[in-house]
Amino acid sequence: MIASLKDLAQRPAPWLVGEAPDRDIVLSSRVRLARNVEGRHFAHTAGESTLDELRERVLAATGRVGGLVGATVLNMEDLAELDRRFLLERHLISVDLVRNLPGRCLVVSDDEAEGIMVNEEDHLRIQTLRTGLDPLGALKGALRLAEELEAEVPFAFDERLGYLTACPTNVGTGLRASVLLHLPGLAQTGDIERVLNSLRRLNYTVRGFYGEGSGVIGSLYQVSNSVTLGPSEDDIVQELLRHTRQVIAAERKARRYLMESEEVGLSDRVWRAHGVLSHARLLSTKEAFERLSDVRLGSGLGILPGVDESMLNMLLISVQSAHLQIVAEASLDAPARDEVRARYVRDQLAIAHTRKDER
Amino acid sequence: MIASLKDLAQRPAPWLVGEAPDRDIVLSSRVRLARNVEGRHFAHTAGESTLDELRERVLAATGRVGGLVGATVLNMEDLAELDRRFLLERHLISVDLVRNLPGRCLVVSDDEAEGIMVNEEDHLRIQTLRTGLDPLGALKGALRLAEELEAEVPFAFDERLGYLTACPTNVGTGLRASVLLHLPGLAQTGDIERVLNSLRRLNYTVRGFYGEGSGVIGSLYQVSNSVTLGPSEDDIVQELLRHTRQVIAAERKARRYLMESEEVGLSDRVWRAHGVLSHARLLSTKEAFERLSDVRLGSGLGILPGVDESMLNMLLISVQSAHLQIVAEASLDAPARDEVRARYVRDQLAIAHTRKDER
Repeated sequence: MIASLKDLAQRPAPWLVGEAPDRDIVLSSRVRLARNVEGRHFAHTAGESTLDELRERVLAATGRVGGLVGATVLNMEDLAELDRRFLLERHLISVDLVRNLPGRCLVVSDDEAEGIMVNEEDHLRIQTLRTGLDPLGALKGALRLAEELEAEVPFAFDERLGYLTACPTNVGTGLRASVLLHLPGLAQTGDIERVLNSLRRLNYTVRGFYGEGSGVIGSLYQVSNSVTLGPSEDDIVQELLRHTRQVIAAERKARRYLMESEEVGLSDRVWRAHGVLSHARLLSTKEAFERLSDVRLGSGLGILPGVDESMLNMLLISVQSAHLQIVAEASLDAPARDEVRARYVRDQLAIAHTRKDER
Repeated sequence: MIASLKDLAQRPAPWLVGEAPDRDIVLSSRVRLARNVEGRHFAHTAGESTLDELRERVLAATGRVGGLVGATVLNMEDLAELDRRFLLERHLISVDLVRNLPGRCLVVSDDEAEGIMVNEEDHLRIQTLRTGLDPLGALKGALRLAEELEAEVPFAFDERLGYLTACPTNVGTGLRASVLLHLPGLAQTGDIERVLNSLRRLNYTVRGFYGEGSGVIGSLYQVSNSVTLGPSEDDIVQELLRHTRQVIAAERKARRYLMESEEVGLSDRVWRAHGVLSHARLLSTKEAFERLSDVRLGSGLGILPGVDESMLNMLLISVQSAHLQIVAEASLDAPARDEVRARYVRDQLAIAHTRKDER
C-alpha cells in the first residue's frame, strides 16, 4: 500500500529510474488496454449508480488478481483537486479523472508500474509502465493483468471486432503503446519535424510530455500507435519498437553531428543549464524542463560526467506544480512555486554532487 | 621594473584590490595633471624630432624624481598593437597612445599607481590611481610628482591662466579627477539617468568603463570634472568627493529598496550570474561584465558571502581581449577568445572558492 501521496511525491517514479535499454533517449515505455464490462453502458452514458456498481465489481476482481494484491485504491471523489493533479503529473491518471469524479478510481501497484483507471473513457484502462525502451515488457504485463481480470469479470468482446470500447478508435485490441522520447539532438539540428512527420505518416500520434493536447517542452515527445484494429497486440508493439529504434538512431546521429560540428557551443549550453539549475532562486516549470533537457543531453554525451540520469528523470516529474505543493503541504501561488522549485532542484543537484564526491 | 606585460596581465591591477573606503561602490579614484614643457610646440603640432627631444627630457627628469625611480619606460614604437591595447585595457594609456606612436611613451611605477604618458595630447600627462574613494590621495600623489618634475623641467605656465595645455578645456589646473563607480542598484531601479543628469548639470562628465566615447557596460560609470580653470585643485577634488558621496548614498538607498521590495528576484539574478560565470564554456566580454556586475552587487549586499571583491575587480580588467591574448601568448579570434575567457573566469572563481573553503 502507498502510505500517502506525499510519500509518493518525495520518491522517484520507479519507472523512470534504474538501468534500461536506450534509457538516455527513451525515458519509459507504456501500454494501456481499454476494456469494458459486458452488458453495461459505457462510462460516458452510465448513471452514477451503474458507475458505482462497476467500480465495486472491478475492485472486487482486482483484489483477486495476483499482480494487484495489496495495490492502492484511490477514489477520485475522496481526493482534493491538488491530489488529482498530482496523480496526473505522475502519469497515473488522465485529465478525464481529474475532471470527472463519481465512480472513478485508480488502482495502482506499489511500484507504480501497474494500474487500472476505473470508469475513465472505458470501464477499465489497464496500464503498465516500464523504464527505458521496453514496450514488449509493458505489453506482457498489461496482457497478464487483463487476462487475470477477464477471469473475474467478463469483458465486452465481439468475435469480428475484438474488444469493444467507448470510442471506436480503440476497438479491437484496445491497445495503446507509447514511448517517451528525449530528442534534443534532433531538435537542435532542426531535423525533428522531418522525423516526427514520418512517424505521423506511419499513423503514430506524437504529443508533448503531458500527453494529449500538450505542447512540447524540454524536447520530450510521446509517440504512440493510433491503429488498434487489425494487427495483433504483438504486431502493434513490434512495429512501435522498430520505428522507435529508427528514431533512436536518428537522434544518436544528430548528437554525433553536434559533437563534431559544434562541441564548444553544445558544451556551453549544457554547462550553463547546469549552472542555472544549481544557482537560480526562481525557476518556472518551463525553464526547469528546458534546462533539465540540456543537462540530460550533456549527461548522455559525457559532457557532464557523473550527473545521475535517474535523478534528472525524477526531477522531470517532481518539479511540477502539484508535486511541489504536495511535498510542501501548502497551496502555493506561482511566484512561491518558482521559489520552492528552484530550491528543490538546487538541493537535489547538491545531494547528487555530494554522493558523487563520496564515491 | 615591470618584467613583462605578461607578468602584468597575470596579476591584479594593484589599484583595484585591497581595502579602501566605499570600495563596494567606488572601484577606484584617478587624477591626471596635464603639463607641457615651456617653449616647445604642443605635441599635435610638434615634429618627430621635437617629440623625441621632449621624451628624452621628460625621461631624464623622471629618473631623478623620487616617486618614479625604477619605474618602467614603455615606448609605444617598441610595442605591438596588442601590447598597446593591453595597456589601454589596463587604464595605463589612452586611445591616443594606441594610435600615435613616434615619441610617445609611458612611464609607470611598479604598482601601476603612478605614471606619466609622454606626448599624449600634452607633453606630460601625470596620472595616479588609488583604490576605492580616494581622489584626495590621488591628487596628493599627482601634485607631488608634478612638483618634483617641475624642479627638473620648466612647465608652460601663465600667471593669469595657470598651466597651459594643448586643449583649452584643460587649461588652468590641467586637472582631471575621476571616480569609477559601480551603480547596479540605480540601474535596476531606473533612477540612474536622473542621478547622472544631475551630475551632468553640475558640469561632470559621465562615461562608461572604457572612457571617452565608450558605452556603459556592467553598470560601471566614470565620473570626472570638466571645469579646470578657476577653482583650485583641492576645491575641484573636494567637490567631486562631495558629489560622489551623494551618488554613493543614492546607490545605497536603491540597493536597500531592492532588498526590501524584490529580494528573491535580486537574489535570483545574482546567483544565476554566478552560475553562468562558473559554468559557461563561451563568454563574451559584454556578458562577462554584466554578470560580474551582478555578482559584485550580490557580494556587496551579502547575498553571495565569501566572494572576494578584489577578485571580481581583477576580472573586470583581465577578461578583456588583449589581456587574454597576452596571457595566452597568441592572437585569438573572437570565438577562441570567448572560450579562453570562459575558462579563465571559471578557473578564477574556482580558485577563490578553494581559498574560501580552506579558511
